[in-house]
Amino acid sequence: MVDRDVLDAVLDAGLVAHVAVQDGVGQPYVVPVAYARDGDTVLFHGSTGSRLFSSLAEGAPTCLTVTLLDGLVLARSVFESSMHYRSAMVLGTATPLEHKAKLRALEAITEHLMPGRWADARRPDRKELAATLVLSLSLTEWSVKVSAGPPDDAEDDLDLPVWAGVVPLFTSPGNPVAAPDLRGEPPVPAYVSTWFHG
Amino acid sequence: MVDRDVLDAVLDAGLVAHVAVQDGVGQPYVVPVAYARDGDTVLFHGSTGSRLFSSLAEGAPTCLTVTLLDGLVLARSVFESSMHYRSAMVLGTATPLEHKAKLRALEAITEHLMPGRWADARRPDRKELAATLVLSLSLTEWSVKVSAGPPDDAEDDLDLPVWAGVVPLFTSPGNPVAAPDLRGEPPVPAYVSTWFHG
Repeated sequence: MVDRDVLDAVLDAGLVAHVAVQDGVGQPYVVPVAYARDGDTVLFHGSTGSRLFSSLAEGAPTCLTVTLLDGLVLARSVFESSMHYRSAMVLGTATPLEHKAKLRALEAITEHLMPGRWADARRPDRKELAATLVLSLSLTEWSVKVSAGPPDDAEDDLDLPVWAGVVPLFTSPGNPVAAPDLRGEPPVPAYVSTWFHG
Repeated sequence: MVDRDVLDAVLDAGLVAHVAVQDGVGQPYVVPVAYARDGDTVLFHGSTGSRLFSSLAEGAPTCLTVTLLDGLVLARSVFESSMHYRSAMVLGTATPLEHKAKLRALEAITEHLMPGRWADARRPDRKELAATLVLSLSLTEWSVKVSAGPPDDAEDDLDLPVWAGVVPLFTSPGNPVAAPDLRGEPPVPAYVSTWFHG
């Protein structure tokens, strides 16, 4: 099950997923969502007021894709030039969560995006929970693709006087910016500071 | 047309788009693609061997979404916590490009991802062009959404002893890694070095 490890690693490293759903006349829509993997499911949420999310909750087939862009691959030829990426795709039908499962899912999503935050921030109340649709998608039908390694130029191109290589890309957090209406001068929490050092 | 300016800015700043297409039984798929905006169109490419791309070339309705993640918004409540992002969504039907338009589109995509590279790398030959499907999607039906600004906590939450603010996220290039089979020791091209300094 090496691939499943890769799938988990990609889902655990991403912050945003792109979810597709189609309307009644076959037009697909792709929307960004916050998500988290929890064991053998992917959890994500949206507003109960969203037509697309309602459609997902009613069982419309969906696809959730997480792509991490790792670098630009500069081959000697344009044809072999590409990107380094890791991409996970999950297919299926999402199930809306309720009660305790819903709250646990929100905790998982919060902790995935902002580790340590759930214990600190005010948790959702009954009204806020009711306004949030939380969906669970099983990791049953999925694929994962990883593009890595040096440029793979054709033999004939190796003597071309063109630099070839990879330019890695990194996503990293900048300095936290306190809310202008923050009362007092509380320090940035320690758990937030750890995001900067892995 | 301020929104159109925003749309263009988002499309011009992104590197990867997520494109949806559904199969014959209504299952949508979301795949990452390299793309570029060219005036009033978005151009993207895939392999002629891909069933999903063939389906797009045959006129299946699609949605192309580009999302730039700009930060994490730590509100005092979990409910108001969110992400800063800019997201552009384009709906429609893609048109396959041929001949000169196809080559120009590949130039646009290459220059969008790797400015300066088209003049340096070996350009596609006839066979490579034939193996590449290049699609054009008109910027006719689209939307763009920008989430920015400080956390928007409810009045009742402002006195909670919880730090609130924004952690910005940045994507930046690392040091170029030369291909192991590079002949001689040519320097990293000047146009690649400029990617690091905007």
